[in-house]
Amino acid sequence: MIKTFRVDDKRYQLKNGAGSDAVHKDPLYAYAAARLTDESGLTGSGLAFTLGQGNDLVCRAAEFYANMLVGNEIEALMHDFGKTFKAMSDEQQFRWLGPHKGVVHLGLAAVTNACFDLWAKKRGVPLWKLLIDLSPEQIVNTLDLSYLEDVLTREEAIALLKQEEAGAAARRDILAKGYPGYDTSVGWFNYDDEQVRENCIRAVAGGFTAMKLKVGSADPLRDIRRANIVRETVGDHVKVMLDANQQWTLPQAISICGELKKMNPFWVEEPTHPDDVLAHVTLAKAVAPVKLAIGEHVPNRILFKNYLQSGCTGFIQVDAVRVGGVSEFITISLLSKKFGVPVVPHVGDMGQLHQHLVLFNHITVGHEALFLEHIPHLKEHFVHPVRIDNGVYITPQEPGSSCDLK
Amino acid sequence: MIKTFRVDDKRYQLKNGAGSDAVHKDPLYAYAAARLTDESGLTGSGLAFTLGQGNDLVCRAAEFYANMLVGNEIEALMHDFGKTFKAMSDEQQFRWLGPHKGVVHLGLAAVTNACFDLWAKKRGVPLWKLLIDLSPEQIVNTLDLSYLEDVLTREEAIALLKQEEAGAAARRDILAKGYPGYDTSVGWFNYDDEQVRENCIRAVAGGFTAMKLKVGSADPLRDIRRANIVRETVGDHVKVMLDANQQWTLPQAISICGELKKMNPFWVEEPTHPDDVLAHVTLAKAVAPVKLAIGEHVPNRILFKNYLQSGCTGFIQVDAVRVGGVSEFITISLLSKKFGVPVVPHVGDMGQLHQHLVLFNHITVGHEALFLEHIPHLKEHFVHPVRIDNGVYITPQEPGSSCDLK
Repeated sequence: MIKTFRVDDKRYQLKNGAGSDAVHKDPLYAYAAARLTDESGLTGSGLAFTLGQGNDLVCRAAEFYANMLVGNEIEALMHDFGKTFKAMSDEQQFRWLGPHKGVVHLGLAAVTNACFDLWAKKRGVPLWKLLIDLSPEQIVNTLDLSYLEDVLTREEAIALLKQEEAGAAARRDILAKGYPGYDTSVGWFNYDDEQVRENCIRAVAGGFTAMKLKVGSADPLRDIRRANIVRETVGDHVKVMLDANQQWTLPQAISICGELKKMNPFWVEEPTHPDDVLAHVTLAKAVAPVKLAIGEHVPNRILFKNYLQSGCTGFIQVDAVRVGGVSEFITISLLSKKFGVPVVPHVGDMGQLHQHLVLFNHITVGHEALFLEHIPHLKEHFVHPVRIDNGVYITPQEPGSSCDLK
Repeated sequence: MIKTFRVDDKRYQLKNGAGSDAVHKDPLYAYAAARLTDESGLTGSGLAFTLGQGNDLVCRAAEFYANMLVGNEIEALMHDFGKTFKAMSDEQQFRWLGPHKGVVHLGLAAVTNACFDLWAKKRGVPLWKLLIDLSPEQIVNTLDLSYLEDVLTREEAIALLKQEEAGAAARRDILAKGYPGYDTSVGWFNYDDEQVRENCIRAVAGGFTAMKLKVGSADPLRDIRRANIVRETVGDHVKVMLDANQQWTLPQAISICGELKKMNPFWVEEPTHPDDVLAHVTLAKAVAPVKLAIGEHVPNRILFKNYLQSGCTGFIQVDAVRVGGVSEFITISLLSKKFGVPVVPHVGDMGQLHQHLVLFNHITVGHEALFLEHIPHLKEHFVHPVRIDNGVYITPQEPGSSCDLK
């Protein structure tokens, strides 16, 4: 039974321009770190991610939700967690502050993730193992599918998962092979050209076959120059993703993407405002065959549904520490599967939690095992930091979701 | 010069089911009340509205923004407030908590509204008077039009306002006549049939020609019965609006609206989730010629742009204590004008601020003077409560925006 909770406001300085992008030039990395402790002393850890200022507000929101869970037995809670998720996210007064977005939804993410962590620790297994051993009904019981009735009913979700059961055994070979990673840190916004070049060489030497460059400069020529440096340094066989972090207006995005297309990016990420579905529809047509990647700032399953319905996004970058946690992440994975769009999470958790979720996505949901973002900057702060070998995530074996902070 | 600020967490109990709807069955009414005080002791008051729990989080967010304004002279600040608004709402760490939505954007609303209130008090005029006396350029200088470049540039906004200048003098007759109100309080969700009937009779006797009923019951027959009671009580010449407060799924909305159409509602309000633009597109086609009204929970100009571009909403219910304050309210009014859709604000402020803004919308922007929601439940708490006479708002004459709380 969950006896106590606490939420810690953890903030970490970054060094030498790491983490910088066109919009966030001087970020911290910060976590609202929720901990739920049961009568045996077992503690579930769940994170929400922010960039520093206001992390305390997310902590307060997480405390509000955590308080609602005291007295619950974790297995009983997770047996139909979808109902609890809905009750928490629709709490009638707190709901006004979203609904289902911003500070309150980040707070909900931290608490939801702590529930899944505690559940896996209680069973003594890594979260990926717990999830892939659930039946389709058990999985769907953890989800809140409300406001998705027009595209994904409970019955359809279960049928979708059942359909993927046949191939699941073969897809388990990913557990031994390891899930591929991509290197986000070759081209942070504040890095100079020489540093980008050196990082590219090091990333390729480290076994990465995909990497990301930050764009969105006030001077488009800087973006083009840097993109060409990356392409020339890594060659044609490495996938290069360009990330504008919402910096462009739609007319700017159309204009500069016309130039950036020439270096053959694998995707263009967050070109403009994350609420602007229709701008992405227009841009997707303009940049085709290059695809857009969307999700880092998309707050919930409803807006993801609109992105998927409108057909403008080639990659869904849902982040389980931005949407309402593991539960809503799985909901959005199922939605994406239904629409035939791959899921490549943004990792506000530095991949700690998502290394579990992409294994589940591949094995159980049948998503392609594309690659998972890798950001190394907070490794020293985790009890069980992700391990990357030759560009591949080593499958974690510790019980839980690898989100315990030191 | 702004010397000091404070933000108060004000919460008010409601009586006997007032304020209740399908989603919010037991709300408080609460304000994050921001106060900016200059060296002369003049104080600008600005509100953000919530339903109680979490109002403290909005207060903390408002303090964050208010602190950025200390040391500014109010006339200089408002001369190009659009730049300040953009700088505040894009503060690089706080922005992550939105962007432009939820707790942080509510906090920004309170501070923005305090700036406009202080500006009008400094000039010694009611806010409506200040606004209608600004030139098109001066108005547009107070706005942040970023992410709207595809539909409304600065030049287009100025041209739109200039085009309306010719008719403005004639439209000033609204100041003497008073802006029509509609009665929101005849059919709160928790009211029984007899109470609804009595309230309808009283509203008509009080001069109202439009009123609202809360729907979204678990039992659709209750909605239909109550809607028919209102129609039978008030007759065919009174406009009756139905408000579901997001309670329906899309399939439910399509089904029940098919029945509710028969009593000829003037609009159907917030049928489903406020992020679900595409669901509203589908529903709008299904319920035509009845129109949808959207905006109470739509957080910013970007999502409103999508609603307007998709053509699914017949009425824009932007609320200046939900979006980022008066500045973004005006932006959305201009957008709505461009798309030919009337603005009928939701009044989280109980109409105190919006009575000024609808006069501006009519006189300067050229919007039709349709009617403004009237909610009487907090009148005793305002220094200058709105005055309604025979269903019409009496034009306020006190300096500022009428948002000082006792």
